Amino acid sequence: MTKQTLERLPQYLNILRSLPCETVNVSATQIAAMLGLNHVQVRKDLAQISNAGKPKVGYNKNELISDIEEALGYNDANDAILVGVGNLGGALMKYGGFKSYGLNILAGFDKDESVVDNKKVFHIDKLENLCARLKVKMAIITTPADEAQAVCDRLVSCGILAVWNFAPVHLRVPGDVIVQQENMSASLAILSKKLTERLKENYSSHT
Amino acid sequence: MTKQTLERLPQYLNILRSLPCETVNVSATQIAAMLGLNHVQVRKDLAQISNAGKPKVGYNKNELISDIEEALGYNDANDAILVGVGNLGGALMKYGGFKSYGLNILAGFDKDESVVDNKKVFHIDKLENLCARLKVKMAIITTPADEAQAVCDRLVSCGILAVWNFAPVHLRVPGDVIVQQENMSASLAILSKKLTERLKENYSSHT
Repeated sequence: MTKQTLERLPQYLNILRSLPCETVNVSATQIAAMLGLNHVQVRKDLAQISNAGKPKVGYNKNELISDIEEALGYNDANDAILVGVGNLGGALMKYGGFKSYGLNILAGFDKDESVVDNKKVFHIDKLENLCARLKVKMAIITTPADEAQAVCDRLVSCGILAVWNFAPVHLRVPGDVIVQQENMSASLAILSKKLTERLKENYSSHT
Repeated sequence: MTKQTLERLPQYLNILRSLPCETVNVSATQIAAMLGLNHVQVRKDLAQISNAGKPKVGYNKNELISDIEEALGYNDANDAILVGVGNLGGALMKYGGFKSYGLNILAGFDKDESVVDNKKVFHIDKLENLCARLKVKMAIITTPADEAQAVCDRLVSCGILAVWNFAPVHLRVPGDVIVQQENMSASLAILSKKLTERLKENYSSHT
């Protein structure tokens, strides 16, 4: 499966879950229209992960939802820990939106102990001990940029295999560790840049 | 400038800002090593936006920082409003990290009025009136998925030209409106999927 297909699957899932309960069948064309995508693309994506489609009828909605969840591995719930419970980290711990994608944040770690949304935030000194006990394989890094690499090194030495990094810094990891970089400041930079160019165009077309 | 170059510029900026004050010059090779990137790539990126580099000496750090900020349009601070002040929206309003990238969130909008981090959250009914008065061109959407399109339509009719969308849904906008999609659930899906595959490989290699 390509990265692009994998990125679209959660969108399909979201649209399907938002349909009325009484909807039984849905076609690739309908899904494409709701998402503003090309229907050939949607058809190709869905063909890779589901046999629930029938010519002229479309997909059985509930079967398709199960097939996408299966393809995304949501049935294997992913336990994770989070390091760096500032504004962003705290929001991620509270945010319910990831639960429907199989993410379960077990606990946080920071310089001060606290409780966020009924989840314990432990002192960072307990990281090694608790990682081993929780047998967790995924970690979310929401520390400031200059602390992220040191935290990442500690996580890797604890046996973490997948890192979701929100710190705006490139992490160096061994080859068997997966890093997913969330680069919100890059998104913002791209948007700002395009807006600035658009405003300049508008300005010059009026002069 | 390519999208890839534009995405790397904030990383360079971050690394440069984190260097000790007394550092005067820095080479593309040093920047590449700190970020784990190819030095040829870094050299090409920087050549596009700065003349502050000299052979054998490298770049003057402060000039390079200014040149990157200029290229990213950070000197034109971008005012924005935010719609949907839940956990994520509230965190973004509080989060100081975007300020150094030129983003200034003026106010929030939601179903209930409140104050977040000294910023006023207005009732959504006041959106049209305030958008016009604030002359704002950028909006951040952090509503639930099923409300995002309706909010986006209202923003567009208020003259918003750039939308940073955190709702996990594809937005339909007129051709002159720029949308930057922040797809955290897709990132999570990719990471979960890779981790599941990695764990299966580890399991089968031990059996």
